[in-house]
Order: sequence, then C-alpha cells, then structure tokens
Amino acid sequence: MGLEAPVGRAVHAGGGEGGEAQLILPGGDVLGHRILLASETAKEVVPAMPFDVCGAMSQGYIGYHIQQALRYALAKRNKNTPVVSLVTQMVVEADDPAFQNPSKPIGPFYSREEAEAIQREKGYAMKEDAGRGWRRVVPSPLPRRIVEIGQVRDLWDKTIVVTCGGGGVPVVETAQGRLEGVAAVIDKDFAAELLAEQVDADVLMILTEVEKVAINWGKPDQKDLSRMSLAEASRYVEEGHFAPGSMLPKVQAAMKFVRSDPGKKAVITSLDKALDALAGKTGTVITFA
Amino acid sequence: MGLEAPVGRAVHAGGGEGGEAQLILPGGDVLGHRILLASETAKEVVPAMPFDVCGAMSQGYIGYHIQQALRYALAKRNKNTPVVSLVTQMVVEADDPAFQNPSKPIGPFYSREEAEAIQREKGYAMKEDAGRGWRRVVPSPLPRRIVEIGQVRDLWDKTIVVTCGGGGVPVVETAQGRLEGVAAVIDKDFAAELLAEQVDADVLMILTEVEKVAINWGKPDQKDLSRMSLAEASRYVEEGHFAPGSMLPKVQAAMKFVRSDPGKKAVITSLDKALDALAGKTGTVITFA
Repeated sequence: MGLEAPVGRAVHAGGGEGGEAQLILPGGDVLGHRILLASETAKEVVPAMPFDVCGAMSQGYIGYHIQQALRYALAKRNKNTPVVSLVTQMVVEADDPAFQNPSKPIGPFYSREEAEAIQREKGYAMKEDAGRGWRRVVPSPLPRRIVEIGQVRDLWDKTIVVTCGGGGVPVVETAQGRLEGVAAVIDKDFAAELLAEQVDADVLMILTEVEKVAINWGKPDQKDLSRMSLAEASRYVEEGHFAPGSMLPKVQAAMKFVRSDPGKKAVITSLDKALDALAGKTGTVITFA
Repeated sequence: MGLEAPVGRAVHAGGGEGGEAQLILPGGDVLGHRILLASETAKEVVPAMPFDVCGAMSQGYIGYHIQQALRYALAKRNKNTPVVSLVTQMVVEADDPAFQNPSKPIGPFYSREEAEAIQREKGYAMKEDAGRGWRRVVPSPLPRRIVEIGQVRDLWDKTIVVTCGGGGVPVVETAQGRLEGVAAVIDKDFAAELLAEQVDADVLMILTEVEKVAINWGKPDQKDLSRMSLAEASRYVEEGHFAPGSMLPKVQAAMKFVRSDPGKKAVITSLDKALDALAGKTGTVITFA
C-alpha cells in the first residue's frame, strides 16, 4: 500500500549511552493510516472518526507498544527507567499558509468519480496520487506550541517520555482560548525539533532508513556525509539534494535546531546505528559551524 | 446498540472545590466498543486490532477529548491547571480465576453459526447475550498494579492526570518480566479504587447515572441512601441490593477504599452532582464506621 516505514526521532540530553533523559517521538504514519482505513471502511457500522481523533488514537496505540517494548529492553539491561506516553496536542496557526495548499495524502484511494462526490459532499480536498488513484489531502502546517510541554519537562529528568506521537494531534487555538482539532498532518521532524528546543536538549537525533545523509543521492557520484555545517547544509538544500517530504524536512529540522543554539548538534542516522552515531562513530552530524 | 453510557471516576485529594490534585479515570466502554467494532468491520482491509490495543487506542481517544474539554472549562474559570493523559497499563494475575470464566461481552453480535465458527477458528469464548445474538466474552480479572503509577505521582500535585482509562490496558507480567497485553476488561471501579489507594487520595468519587445509591432499587419501597457505613454496605451487598456489573462493583470498590484507611471516605453520585456531593450536600457517602 505504499506505506512509509515507521521512523523515530529521539531527543537526547545529558550523558552518553544509557542517559536517563530521553524523549521519543514515534513516527506513526503507518498506524495512523491503518486507523483511518479501518475507520473509513467501517463507517456504515460506526461513525468514521475525525482525523485529529485518529491521531490521538494512534498515540495511544503506538505509545502502548513503545512502553512495553522499551521497558522490556531496559529490564534485560538491568535498568528500570520508567517509560510513559503522553497524549500530546500541537498548536498550529489557523492562518498557516499550508491550509491554503493541502498537500499530504491520507486514507483510502478512490476513483475520480468517488473523489469528486466526496469533495462535493464533505468539502474535502482530493488529489490524484502518483497514478494510484485519488485521495484526500490535508495541510501540513508548522508546529508552533506543544500544549503538554510542562508535563514533559516535569517527567523527563527521570522518565523516558514518549510524546508528540505522529507530530502531535494538530489543534488551533480559538479567540476564546479553546483548542480545536484540525484535519492536518504535522511534519514529525519539525515537531521533534520544537520539542528538542523546548526541553533544551543537547542533541536532536532523527532516525530514518539510511545511515547517513547523502548528496547526489542514488547517482553514480553519491556522497555520504559524516558532517555538515549550517552553511554547507544550506547550500545542499538550495542545490536540491534533498527530497521534499523525505530527507529535506529532516535536514531543515536539524538546521533549525543548531541555529537555535550554536553549541548543540543534530544527528541523522538509522535506528540500528543510533548509539554509534551518538558516540560520533557514524551518522551525519549537523553543527552550527 | 445497548451501549453503556460513559461514566467517570475521580480521585480527589486535598482541598475543596478547585483543588489541584485530581485524577480522572474515564469510562471508555462506549469508545472502546466503537473502536473494536470499526476494527472488526474493516478486518478485510486492515488487520483487526488485538483487544488490548483497542484499549490503548481508546485511552488516546478519550484522553485527548478530556484534555481539550477540561482545559477549556478551567480556562473559563480563569484557571490554567494543566491536564494530561497517560497511556496506562494495569497488571493482572495470569492465574486470576476470572480467566477460567470469561463473562464480559465485547464487540459485534453474531449468529450462532458464526459464533461457533469463530470459536473454532480463533479459540474465542462466545456466549449468547440476552437474546440479542452471540458475542465474544472476555474475562474481567482484578487490577493488581498500575505500571505507570510513579509518573501519576510525579505529576499529580500540580496537574490533572487522566489515567487508567477504561480500567487500564490489561497486561500480565511474564516470568521474564515482560508485560504482555491480554484480552480482558478490567472493572473500572476496582481500577479507580486501586489508583485512589496508591496515590493516598482522601476521597474516591465514583460518578454514575444516579445521584444516590439505593436499596430496593426500582421497587415501591426504594430508599436512597445518603450514608453507608462499611457494616451497612456489607449487609446490603449480602442482601443482594446491588446489581452485579452495575452498582455492586461501585459499592465494593467504595468499601475496599474505606477499609484500606478508616479515615477516608468514598462518594457515589452523578456527574452533575459531583461538587455538591464533595461538599457533603448529596450523593452517597461510604465511611468506615
């Protein structure tokens, strides 16, 4: 079904391996997608869930699995650091330009006729998706504020906190101070970056499917990068080396993080190389200078 | 569809109205049921979710709504106490006698033939449900330990914590220390009672559909109770005044709570009377003596 593989982002502050202060931000694309598919398929039996609610459900789902798996992995190493998941809302701006240009495909595929009917009836934006059929598209606004950041901070000096799952449940704040869920997909790299800034993390680590960021990716002269300064990263971005929706937001999030505090670093690598990369042995390290 | 109305349980410690230290344990029966229905209905499209995962999803779902609604209600009163939901696992004993006698119906209704086929193929226990069709039944073991209790304690002196949603996701602990989800429904009244004990709450409040507990309920000589001592409650239980699966577990949970600390009290009332009941003006108060 062309699903993305799950990826993770970790925010690391403090010591080296086994440091207690870590935050985990699960990807959730696959599971949110499954939940939406189940909800839409069953809509004759139970009302289909609004998209923000699908996001909250996926946070419960993935958080639960991460709590179990990580607790067990820690126990095998004779550590009993607690692991907890917070249902996390992410404030976006109602006037974010992304709302004028919904771009992120979600949910099932439809025929052109079905898509047009849905657009008429529900007002959803529908787009053709790479020859595979028509899908609903939602905006991807920038994350502005993590509603539950105070509780993340309260917990994270002695707890592994799973938070901002799927980028956080997107909400807008009304003039009356009410938070209202919106149908949107928040970029998880930007969400992780905001989280890392707000907890004053030393390292932002983005885990993806490749060990290192590359320029000329997939070409004969592909070059894997061990380091990038902010200036180098800017140049590579301008030269179009990184694919939108894929490596580009990861590099942009890394750049934003080191720009926020020139003494810090960001690391992009694969899950299985995370420890080595944290120790400086592999991965791509992005620094200010 | 014969769904129960959502009910809530609150654990209250500290001052009177507006005390900051509160825990909320949402009912979740309705939503967990909806999730299971959607999941089963869509199983040809996406794999059906295991029942423990449906529970974790419903915690995300309900927690998200409670966070939004309560935050707004507080803001209207010029309070900004944070509200956060934790994905909460509840340890049950693998040798709990309830596993020998699954009794709690969940999910869709089936014909007898369908039910027998499911029983053969999946090993599920299936029972006829009050003339409405056949359903899967799962056990309702006693809650023994709240895995995330440490984080509840870390947060709750300045945060409203939504926890143990739906009674908690039921897990058993293996000999290797692994937590594994099980298909079970934990009684939410007993879960709330355990939570209240473990945070040393002053008051356990169980919110249901009636303002007061009654004896001879629904009969001409129905008598609503403003107070019950432990001894009186025991006698009423023995006399069969309270329906299993309905008022009985609420009264039993209240009894267990005041037995755990004779200086404390439990209150059973309706949501709209919660504040009055906390102030001693209505509801049924259960005390040790």
